[in-house]
Amino acid sequence: MPWAPGWYVACRSDELRAAPLGRVVAGVPVVLLRDEAGVHALEDRCPHRGMPLSAGRMTGGELECAYHGWRFGGSGACRAIPGLVGDAQRLERAATPHSACESDGFAWVHVGDEASPRAQPFALPVVEGAQGRVDLEAVVEAEIEDALENILDVPHTGFLHRGLFRSGAGRNEVDVEVRRDATSCEAEFHGEPRPEGLLGRLLAPRGGVVRHVDRFVLPCVAQVEYALGEDTRLVVTHLLTPIERGRTMMRHAISFRTRVPAALMRPAIHVLGRWLLAQDVRALARVTRNDALFGGVQRHVSTKIDILGPHLRALIRSAAAGMPPPPSATWRVRLMT
Amino acid sequence: MPWAPGWYVACRSDELRAAPLGRVVAGVPVVLLRDEAGVHALEDRCPHRGMPLSAGRMTGGELECAYHGWRFGGSGACRAIPGLVGDAQRLERAATPHSACESDGFAWVHVGDEASPRAQPFALPVVEGAQGRVDLEAVVEAEIEDALENILDVPHTGFLHRGLFRSGAGRNEVDVEVRRDATSCEAEFHGEPRPEGLLGRLLAPRGGVVRHVDRFVLPCVAQVEYALGEDTRLVVTHLLTPIERGRTMMRHAISFRTRVPAALMRPAIHVLGRWLLAQDVRALARVTRNDALFGGVQRHVSTKIDILGPHLRALIRSAAAGMPPPPSATWRVRLMT
Amino acid sequence: MPWAPGWYVACRSDELRAAPLGRVVAGVPVVLLRDEAGVHALEDRCPHRGMPLSAGRMTGGELECAYHGWRFGGSGACRAIPGLVGDAQRLERAATPHSACESDGFAWVHVGDEASPRAQPFALPVVEGAQGRVDLEAVVEAEIEDALENILDVPHTGFLHRGLFRSGAGRNEVDVEVRRDATSCEAEFHGEPRPEGLLGRLLAPRGGVVRHVDRFVLPCVAQVEYALGEDTRLVVTHLLTPIERGRTMMRHAISFRTRVPAALMRPAIHVLGRWLLAQDVRALARVTRNDALFGGVQRHVSTKIDILGPHLRALIRSAAAGMPPPPSATWRVRLMT
Repeated sequence: MPWAPGWYVACRSDELRAAPLGRVVAGVPVVLLRDEAGVHALEDRCPHRGMPLSAGRMTGGELECAYHGWRFGGSGACRAIPGLVGDAQRLERAATPHSACESDGFAWVHVGDEASPRAQPFALPVVEGAQGRVDLEAVVEAEIEDALENILDVPHTGFLHRGLFRSGAGRNEVDVEVRRDATSCEAEFHGEPRPEGLLGRLLAPRGGVVRHVDRFVLPCVAQVEYALGEDTRLVVTHLLTPIERGRTMMRHAISFRTRVPAALMRPAIHVLGRWLLAQDVRALARVTRNDALFGGVQRHVSTKIDILGPHLRALIRSAAAGMPPPPSATWRVRLMT
Repeated sequence: MPWAPGWYVACRSDELRAAPLGRVVAGVPVVLLRDEAGVHALEDRCPHRGMPLSAGRMTGGELECAYHGWRFGGSGACRAIPGLVGDAQRLERAATPHSACESDGFAWVHVGDEASPRAQPFALPVVEGAQGRVDLEAVVEAEIEDALENILDVPHTGFLHRGLFRSGAGRNEVDVEVRRDATSCEAEFHGEPRPEGLLGRLLAPRGGVVRHVDRFVLPCVAQVEYALGEDTRLVVTHLLTPIERGRTMMRHAISFRTRVPAALMRPAIHVLGRWLLAQDVRALARVTRNDALFGGVQRHVSTKIDILGPHLRALIRSAAAGMPPPPSATWRVRLMT
Repeated sequence: MPWAPGWYVACRSDELRAAPLGRVVAGVPVVLLRDEAGVHALEDRCPHRGMPLSAGRMTGGELECAYHGWRFGGSGACRAIPGLVGDAQRLERAATPHSACESDGFAWVHVGDEASPRAQPFALPVVEGAQGRVDLEAVVEAEIEDALENILDVPHTGFLHRGLFRSGAGRNEVDVEVRRDATSCEAEFHGEPRPEGLLGRLLAPRGGVVRHVDRFVLPCVAQVEYALGEDTRLVVTHLLTPIERGRTMMRHAISFRTRVPAALMRPAIHVLGRWLLAQDVRALARVTRNDALFGGVQRHVSTKIDILGPHLRALIRSAAAGMPPPPSATWRVRLMT
């Protein structure tokens, strides 16, 4: 598996209602279902003839296959085989279960070594005094690590998002402190003036100095925090789910606190967020197609201002291979923004 | 080849008129043509530059290639090469022939060991006093053995065709006698009350007990016979043709004799037949897509009420591999319908 | 590489303006750009994160990547990395260059051994007293050698282009002199009466005897010359560019001198040329699809009237493999037209 083991978002809680729901998470088709005990996930395949269980229906708290009516409980146990004289329940007739749970408005599925699903999914941060949360989502034709690097990459904002976010003029020299441990890496930017683009002007019309942290947490989280004085905070948590090779679902939870009324901020974040997102989705898809044209091999040349990308790639690669992570470290980088 | 050798339907007789007709049968593109001697089949490829011969035309009882005008007889012999000074006919210039014949309104092609095409194609049964025959056809995205099992499988009718065919309630215990020999297997159902669905009510409004036989005959025939008293008979012969992996052409010849006037039965069978067929086509396509998602390997868990499926699969598999068939046998199964 | 090394047309000169232009030539994505020094070609991939450079823009005579703003000169050297403190230029940050040049209204790229791009691209012939030149182009789903053989093949004209070009009747016996050397092969037709089709009648309403030469020149040129008396000449130079396996760009430069006014000839050549071209494109696509259906292997049976095809295939195959060409030779063939 090219992906790090751990918890990934399978769907939004509000997508999973009475009917079973089929999703592909890290190459594995799963059916999500909800019964009185909560959320469950099974391999999306009836062990009988291979029908997707997500084509079936919930009846009496059990999932009934649409083809021959075999019934399964949330744990995958086979509860009934219509037409069969005698007991249905046998081990080989069970649907394969996956660990699943629900938190922060999402249903999560654990991918990888099912024997010991580590702890809990990533918890969304609580922003004190937040005015609200805006959620966006998009499917991108890209590998998860390319999408994660893109989210946490400062230099591209001046070009791909020219005018919208940063100017690309590169007039300010900024000090960056970088930390990497066994499961995460982060970059803290010191002394960056408020970005000149549309979004910066909106959040902080009178300028100022931004405190800014970019963070990656295994297996799938990218987090960006902006703070300006005491009033203004913007925390964007990006929860990414690889669907299959070259295809990733991105979910973005944006919490904000500003001086601007929420009734204005909310639509502004919606519009600008979608705009930024569309630019990234288009660029990442171009990179993915190009990697395929060049034989499917990524040959990257990085410089020291590719601050987090190479490290989050190394963390994912070692976790996916079951190897020990690279050693923890801290260092400093200078960057013009 | 994943398919059993033998005769397969290539097209309906009424599709093959003056023009040559290209069809893919068991992965082999063939061109069908009709001359004074009858129906012929050639590999659909001009030996000269690989043009499909089905793009050509019949002229003077010969098939003329659309690209350079090479001409072939029904046996594949090259009869003319325009522009060439001298005789055209040479062995290496011949188009490869396939055994072909015509019966019961279909043109058949023999697939597999051409040296000894066994006997004749399957002959459609004659239903005494039949009121008529309805023909249906559909392409299904499925392997031929999945489609054959689906046709001969009783338990799915209560779920996939709920209400239309059987109810799925499973109130009646039915005795089934199963027989398997070297080239076929069949199941005879004893004491089944007339099914409760729409189709059963139509055929036998006053109920009764059904005599019912399901039968598979190598390489491609599934047959279903229903009888109710002396008046009512329904014999459906399904002739399946694998096109390529995961794609099968199904042709259904439905002969019937009922108390209901033919003028009513015919449209009713048409409408209900198409309805049933559409449900099966959709379900089989889902299974095929799901098998592909799960790595292209079918892992089935069968129970004893999967009466014919595992046996027809074994018959096809051993015939395709040129192995001896599984030994003949008879046994009994109990099934709730 | 299945293609012979050498110069191939990448685009028309008038397609390459201020913006960089992405094209795939012989499986290699290249970006073409024009600066004060002329035309340049680079691998269409930013060495940083794999973005196609053709998505970028020209600024200050340099190509700026759309993703992070890296800048490259026409030689591929990296000139700037926005955000980076210090010098950008390092060898591993350069984009890979390809030899490129401009002539006869086309931008050419050299494919294969970059160490020694041989000499110059093929020069279009000058037709003395030409009334004009008509350019046509089309993408064909075919291998380059199939398209080249088709262009230089006389016998197909009577069938695929029946009526339009030759009649297919085969009444005239024509003597053909064939020559092959290390980089080209050609066929000279003696004593062919003016073809009976629409095009022949248009060019030479009063008939006569045609001088006619068909020629292939490595790696990608097919040339057809017709002369009728002193007045009428038609020289068609076909410049073919393999895009990828099974897909070829064809460019046709048609120079003509006739008794008919240019104002009539030009639209007539346009219309008839497109018509002929569409027939060839359709036929070649059918052959390509059929080759794929038959396992991707071309098994051709040739006769002596397949005059140039087998020889141009041998020239391409040996050049692509870096083997010595077949020995030079001359011979004669008789052909009925």
